[in-house]
Amino acid sequence: MAAIASQIRPGAYYDSVVLMQLQRALLTLPGVLDAGAVMATPVNLDLLDASGLRAETGAGADDLLIVVKAEQREAAEAAINQIDALLVRRRVAGETEFLPKSLEAAAHQLPEADWVLISVPGRFAAGVARDALRLGKNVFLYSNNVSLEDEATLKREALGRGLIVMGPDCGTAIVGGIGFGFANRTRRGPIGLVAASGTGLQAVASAIHRLGGGISQALGTGGRDLHAGVGAAAARQALDLLRRDPETSVIVLISKPPEGEVAGRVAAAARRTGKPVVLNLIGLPGSGRSLGNLHFAGDLEEAAEIAVRLANSPRVPADASSSKGSARYLRGLFSGGTLAYEAVLGLQIVLHPLHTNVPLQASQRLEDPLHSTGHTILDLGADQFTVGRLHPMIDNDLRLRRLRQEANDAGTAVILLDVVLGEGAHPDPAAELAPAIAEALHRGDLEILVCVIGTDLDPQGLEGQIEKFRACGARVFTGLRETLDQVVRLLPPDAEPWPAPVPLESFRAPAAINVGLESFYESLLAQGAAAVQVDWRPPAGGDERLMAILAKMKGTSEPRQAS
Amino acid sequence: MAAIASQIRPGAYYDSVVLMQLQRALLTLPGVLDAGAVMATPVNLDLLDASGLRAETGAGADDLLIVVKAEQREAAEAAINQIDALLVRRRVAGETEFLPKSLEAAAHQLPEADWVLISVPGRFAAGVARDALRLGKNVFLYSNNVSLEDEATLKREALGRGLIVMGPDCGTAIVGGIGFGFANRTRRGPIGLVAASGTGLQAVASAIHRLGGGISQALGTGGRDLHAGVGAAAARQALDLLRRDPETSVIVLISKPPEGEVAGRVAAAARRTGKPVVLNLIGLPGSGRSLGNLHFAGDLEEAAEIAVRLANSPRVPADASSSKGSARYLRGLFSGGTLAYEAVLGLQIVLHPLHTNVPLQASQRLEDPLHSTGHTILDLGADQFTVGRLHPMIDNDLRLRRLRQEANDAGTAVILLDVVLGEGAHPDPAAELAPAIAEALHRGDLEILVCVIGTDLDPQGLEGQIEKFRACGARVFTGLRETLDQVVRLLPPDAEPWPAPVPLESFRAPAAINVGLESFYESLLAQGAAAVQVDWRPPAGGDERLMAILAKMKGTSEPRQAS
Repeated sequence: MAAIASQIRPGAYYDSVVLMQLQRALLTLPGVLDAGAVMATPVNLDLLDASGLRAETGAGADDLLIVVKAEQREAAEAAINQIDALLVRRRVAGETEFLPKSLEAAAHQLPEADWVLISVPGRFAAGVARDALRLGKNVFLYSNNVSLEDEATLKREALGRGLIVMGPDCGTAIVGGIGFGFANRTRRGPIGLVAASGTGLQAVASAIHRLGGGISQALGTGGRDLHAGVGAAAARQALDLLRRDPETSVIVLISKPPEGEVAGRVAAAARRTGKPVVLNLIGLPGSGRSLGNLHFAGDLEEAAEIAVRLANSPRVPADASSSKGSARYLRGLFSGGTLAYEAVLGLQIVLHPLHTNVPLQASQRLEDPLHSTGHTILDLGADQFTVGRLHPMIDNDLRLRRLRQEANDAGTAVILLDVVLGEGAHPDPAAELAPAIAEALHRGDLEILVCVIGTDLDPQGLEGQIEKFRACGARVFTGLRETLDQVVRLLPPDAEPWPAPVPLESFRAPAAINVGLESFYESLLAQGAAAVQVDWRPPAGGDERLMAILAKMKGTSEPRQAS
Repeated sequence: MAAIASQIRPGAYYDSVVLMQLQRALLTLPGVLDAGAVMATPVNLDLLDASGLRAETGAGADDLLIVVKAEQREAAEAAINQIDALLVRRRVAGETEFLPKSLEAAAHQLPEADWVLISVPGRFAAGVARDALRLGKNVFLYSNNVSLEDEATLKREALGRGLIVMGPDCGTAIVGGIGFGFANRTRRGPIGLVAASGTGLQAVASAIHRLGGGISQALGTGGRDLHAGVGAAAARQALDLLRRDPETSVIVLISKPPEGEVAGRVAAAARRTGKPVVLNLIGLPGSGRSLGNLHFAGDLEEAAEIAVRLANSPRVPADASSSKGSARYLRGLFSGGTLAYEAVLGLQIVLHPLHTNVPLQASQRLEDPLHSTGHTILDLGADQFTVGRLHPMIDNDLRLRRLRQEANDAGTAVILLDVVLGEGAHPDPAAELAPAIAEALHRGDLEILVCVIGTDLDPQGLEGQIEKFRACGARVFTGLRETLDQVVRLLPPDAEPWPAPVPLESFRAPAAINVGLESFYESLLAQGAAAVQVDWRPPAGGDERLMAILAKMKGTSEPRQAS
C-alpha cells in the first residue's frame, strides 16, 4: 500500500510557476507515485483529496502544502526532504539575468513603457496596479481573485488620470499588434474588439482571422467591468478609443448581459461611436439582427462573421436620428402579445429604461398600464385589457383612445402600432386607424410607425392596408425587425459625455513592464515588443499585517480584501 | 360643460360583440360625445376614467356599466333610455336564422364536426370546453382569463381521450388549410408550426408565405402550455402529430422559454420527431445555430427564413446518436470561462438537467465542483480553481486529473475539452493532453471531443496540434458551434413515450362547431369549412351559485375559478 508524506510552509510566498515546477520535479524522484504543491485553500485540499493525496495537516489558506505519495514511506519522506534543494535550484535558474526588483526601477530601466502587465497572486495585485497607475502607466491586470471594491477603486483612479485598467481577470489583449497575456496571433486589420470576456475575445479574434479579417486593437476589460459597481468604466474607455482610432472601422463588443443602468450606458456609448458595432451580449438575444449601427450576434462565431462582413462592405451607418424638440420616447401600442414581447426583447438594451406590461425583468414592469412613462411598450391584448371587451385585433376602440393619449403627451417622439391581418381580425383596420394617425401627426414632431403582419391572400388586402397607412403619413413596415431598426434610428442615444481620452499613442507600439508570470514577459520579447521583467516579491514577505502598515505609509489606505 | 349619465345592469351576461355594437350605437345618438359599455372591472373603470367617462356607481366586476357623455344632461339621459331598444334591435338581428341552443344540439346538426371553437368569456369557457371533450371533440379555446388549474385539468382530460385542447388564450391555428380564430391566409406546404404564442405564429406563418414557403398545419397551444403546471401537454401532442404527418417535412416551434423540466421534455420531443425542428424560444438564445436536428432562430423572421431554407433543401437530419451501454452524460472540462458559459447557454435546453460552476440559472449550480453529476460543464479556470495555481491554459495538471476522473465514471459518454492556443498559453498542450485522451479512450464506449481555438500563426502550430489530437482518437473541431452540434448528435434524447395519438384525420378537412364570437363562424364559412354556430347563453344566466349547482349535477365538480 502506498505511503503519504507531507510538509507545510506557513505564510510563505511562492509563485504559481515555482509550485508547478516543484510538483513536476517531485514526480521525477524515485518511487514517487504522485505529488501536489499547493496553497492550502479548501478547494485545493479537496482536489488533493480527490487525487488520493489526503493529508491531515491543519494547513490554512495562506500556507504552502506539499504532499507526496510514494510506493514506500521511505521514498515519500526522501522526496519531502528534497524540497529545499528543488526550490533553491529553481531560484538560481531564475536569477541568471539581472532584473529590477521594483516597478519604479523597471520604469527607470524602460522609460518608454506605457503599460504594466500584472499577474501576481490576487491578494497582492491591486497594490501593484495602484503603484503602476501612480507611475502613469496603463494596466493589464491578469490576476483574478481581486475584490470588486478594489476593481472599482482602481478604475476610478485610472479614469481620473486618462489611463485604462484592463482587468482584473483580464486574460487577453492585443495592443498595437502585440498580444498581452493569452493572445492569438492574428492578422492586423480594421476590426476593433472590446471584451468583458477572455476566451470570448480569443475565440472571436481567431474566427475573424480564419475568415480573412484582421484586428486593429483587442481590448479586454475584465469579466466584471459591466457590473453595476464598476459601471463599464473600461468598456466605455475602450469604445471611445476605438471610436477615435482611424485604423478601426468596425467594433465588436462581447460581454455577458450587463445589468440595468449599465446596459443602457454601454449601448448608448456603442451607438455614439458612429461606427458599426457588433454586440454579442452572451445570453441576451437581440431580437432583430440590427438596430441602427448596432448588430446583434447570437454567438461568438456569428459575431466574427458579421464583423468581417461589415469590414468588407464599408458604409457609414446612416443615422436617421431626428430628435425634434423635447420628444424623446417610444410608445409601442401592440395588439399582438408576442410582438410586444419581441419588441421589449429587442429594444430593452438600446432604449433604457423601458417600461411595459410584458416585462422580461421585474424592473421593467409599468406601474400603471393606463399611463405610459418614458419608453413604454404595451400589449393591449393582455388579459387585464380584455375582460368583457373584444380583442384589439377586432375592436380598435382601445387603441384609438390610447393613440390619442400618447400623441397628446409632449414626451412621445415615436408611436409604434402593429396591425395583424387575416381571418377573424377586423375587416379594415386602416379605415379606423389611419384617420386617427393623420390627426396625431398634426403635431409635427411625432413619427408613427406601423408594422403590418399579413399576406397577399388575407381578406383585408395587404397592399390596400399598407397604402392607406402610407397615405396618412405613417411609416409602414411588414416585419418587426425592420420596424425596430427604424425606431432606434429615430431615437438618438443619451448624450453622456465620453470619459477623458486615453491617448491613442499608448496603443501603437506598446512597451511594457511585466510583474508576475515570466512566460508573459518572454512572449512580449518573442513578439518584438520592448519589455522588462520585475523580479517581484510580495511586500513584507506576504505578511498581511506588515503589508497593511506599508500601504498606509504609501497613502493607499483603501480597504483591501485578501482573497 | 359636458354631462355624464350612466346605468348599471348587475350580473347580466352580454357578449363582447354586443357591447361593442351598443357602444357604437350610443355614439350615433344626438348630442352624444363619447360612450362606454363595459364590464365594470377595475381596469375598465380606470379606462373609462382615462377617457373622461368617470362615473361613481359602485358597479362590480360582474356588472355591466354603460356611461354616456353628452353636450347636455338631457341628451345623455335620452341616450341611456335607448339602451334596451338598442339591445333588442341587436337580439332580433341575431335571430334571423335558426341556431342550435346547445353544444349537443349543434353536434347532432353537424355530426362530422371534430372541432369546437370556444370564445365565450373566460369564466364560462372551461365548462364549455369540458362539454366539448365529453362529446369527443377537439377544442380550440380562444377565450382568455381561464385559470391555470382549469387549463391543466382540461388538457389532462384531452390526453386521456386522444383529443387536443389548443388554448386557452389560443388566438390562432391553421388546421388542414382552414384558419381558426385569427389566422392569415397562407399557401399550403411542408412546414408545420407549433406555437405557444398567437401573433408569433401569425408573424412566422406570414413570413413563410412571403418567402415562398407553405404551411401544412399551424397549431397554437395557448401561451401557458409550457408552464410547469401544464407540462407542454398540447405542444407534445402537436409535435407528435407533425412527426406522423406525411405532409410535414419541417417543424417550427415557437414559445417563450419553457421552465426547468418542461424545457427538457419539449426539447427531447423535438429531437425525437426525426424531422428538422426550428426553435424560437423567445428570449432564450441558442448559442450555436444548430444542434442535431434542432435549429435555433434569434427572432420570428429568422425562424421563418430557416424553415423555408430547410424545406427547400430536403435532407434527413443525420442522427449520429451512438449510445453505447449505460454511458449517457456529457462532461465538459473547459479552460475558457466564456466558452464554458456559451456551452451552458447552447446546451441547457437540450441536455437537461445540466450542472455547472458557471450557472445561468440557480438550479444549474453544481453542488460539488470536484464531482460531476449527470451532464456537467466546468470552467476549470474559475477563481475557485486558480488560487495558488496556474491557469489551465498554462498548466494542464488539473485537467489531466479531471479527465481521468471523468473517464473512470461509467456514466460519462462524451468528454469535451477546449484547447486555447496563442501567446502566453502552454507551448504544446497536445503533447500532454493527447496521451491522456488515448488512455481514456481505451474504455471503448467513450467519445472525446476537442475544440481547438487558435490561428495558423499561433506559436503552437494549429495544424500540428489538431493532428496530435486526431491521432489519439479525439474528434477535433475549430469552433464551439460545431463542437456542441456534435455533442448533441452523440447523446440521444430521453425516450419519454409519446402521448396517445390524436388522429390525423381530424386535421385534414376540419368541420367545426363555434361557440362565441360569430365572426369566427363567418370566417369558417368564408373559407369553405362546414361549421355551425351555437346560440350560446351562459348557464343559469351567468349566476355563479346556480352554475356551481348545475356543474355538480353534470358531474363536473373540479374547482373552477371565476375570472
